[in-house]
Amino acid sequence: MSEVRWAEILTIGTEILLGDVLDTNSQWLSRRLVRMGASVRRHVTVGDDEREIVTEVRHALSRAPDLLITTGGLGPTDDDRTLSAVAQALNVPLILNEEALKMIAQRYKELFESGAVDSPEMTPSRTKMAYLPAGGEPLLNQVGTAPGVWLAVGKTTLVCLPGVPAELKDIFTNALPPLLKSVLGTGYYSERLYEVTCKDESVLSSILKEVASAHPDVYLKSKVRPFGTSVRIRLFLSASGVRPEDVEQSLRQTVDDLLVQLEPMGILLIPIPTDDEE
Amino acid sequence: MSEVRWAEILTIGTEILLGDVLDTNSQWLSRRLVRMGASVRRHVTVGDDEREIVTEVRHALSRAPDLLITTGGLGPTDDDRTLSAVAQALNVPLILNEEALKMIAQRYKELFESGAVDSPEMTPSRTKMAYLPAGGEPLLNQVGTAPGVWLAVGKTTLVCLPGVPAELKDIFTNALPPLLKSVLGTGYYSERLYEVTCKDESVLSSILKEVASAHPDVYLKSKVRPFGTSVRIRLFLSASGVRPEDVEQSLRQTVDDLLVQLEPMGILLIPIPTDDEE
Repeated sequence: MSEVRWAEILTIGTEILLGDVLDTNSQWLSRRLVRMGASVRRHVTVGDDEREIVTEVRHALSRAPDLLITTGGLGPTDDDRTLSAVAQALNVPLILNEEALKMIAQRYKELFESGAVDSPEMTPSRTKMAYLPAGGEPLLNQVGTAPGVWLAVGKTTLVCLPGVPAELKDIFTNALPPLLKSVLGTGYYSERLYEVTCKDESVLSSILKEVASAHPDVYLKSKVRPFGTSVRIRLFLSASGVRPEDVEQSLRQTVDDLLVQLEPMGILLIPIPTDDEE
Repeated sequence: MSEVRWAEILTIGTEILLGDVLDTNSQWLSRRLVRMGASVRRHVTVGDDEREIVTEVRHALSRAPDLLITTGGLGPTDDDRTLSAVAQALNVPLILNEEALKMIAQRYKELFESGAVDSPEMTPSRTKMAYLPAGGEPLLNQVGTAPGVWLAVGKTTLVCLPGVPAELKDIFTNALPPLLKSVLGTGYYSERLYEVTCKDESVLSSILKEVASAHPDVYLKSKVRPFGTSVRIRLFLSASGVRPEDVEQSLRQTVDDLLVQLEPMGILLIPIPTDDEE
């Protein structure tokens, strides 16, 4: 059985560290990567500070994930420093990429024709978005103007996406799938969610502990939510792997082991749908 | 002028890396820390994995922030490993803290009396929450059961908060202010938000670049949002410092410098309220 591939996400944006903007991209990306069978091991956010970005890109690459996704800092303004920092982290120059330049010119032509911008002209700040770290390939952005970028760095595939959620989702959904498939392989993911008829997380604790240690391949988590003056407890299980039948069997056995202990205590597990909302 | 104090936030929870739960705590904490005059330099999220937590706590402490806040992993279940990992990162033992034990017993007494739990008994998993890294002091949790913890580590004050947002907010709002005041000092923060009557971020780019480089103490960010078939551009400015009059003057001068360049182009800055919603 080959190994589960793993990913890290590096978010770049001072607005997030100021609490001015909520980072929803990391969750959106993580849900999708996990469902492709990947393990997401770390989210990091730094500001629009070239030195900090360089430090974190190097840290991440030193851990050699299969996939490192950066979000943010690809736009035309001077505080968009991601590509410059990535080039510095890799010790490669920024090079004008003709394909990226064509993508950007085409997008500004479309935006000009729809009246969204006042001119289709390729100004220096628009052209800046076509300078990619040497070795980088552009990924078409059909919503905004800044292309995404991907680069092979040793064992790691480094993907830079814009921070605007609609642009990130467009590139991830439309331009990235073939690349992701080759990086992440054909992983399999499955999950279960149950309502637990018990109001006290701590009484579940020893049972969960025992069952979890017998099934280290399954993620098992009790979730406590306030519910009136009481609490509501849910159990969430998920697992990833390469063979679907192995993953499903692991989940089934884990649930069986839980039921053996919970049923004599009169505690039920009521299956509920795992909402896949954004 | 003394220096602006700085903070990092370390979020602990596999559910966040799975994309199962959106991390809103980092934004909530950052907004408040920034408004106390602190600079937030980094958000990091790792899973419920003791080795990963130890690594990240050590990394953060090696950067010696004034404040390091961890969230998550304080509960009664076996996957709540934050305090054990912090003890390991600091090479200190976990010690039963009598004050924490009293807090927890009192909370379970209250929860039992309100019918929220089936027994007030201090089971091993409940008692586990009273084992703090040596030198740690408990912070009363009036919503859940796990106390927060604070610890002085050299120049850094390390604060561990629960991951459940209502519990984190309770401790931050009620138990933490005196400590935060002594750590962060009396910083001052101010911000401005403007609607820009211009539809193209890239035409603003060179102006923002010039003004931003003349005012390195001011955070200056254009924010582009889709608006029908067009886009809407806003300008956000903020600054922190020790003397309120210096901070306000920096912001005023930055806006003046922007207007000198924008007004001849027929571009207006329309002040709008900076919503402080959660």
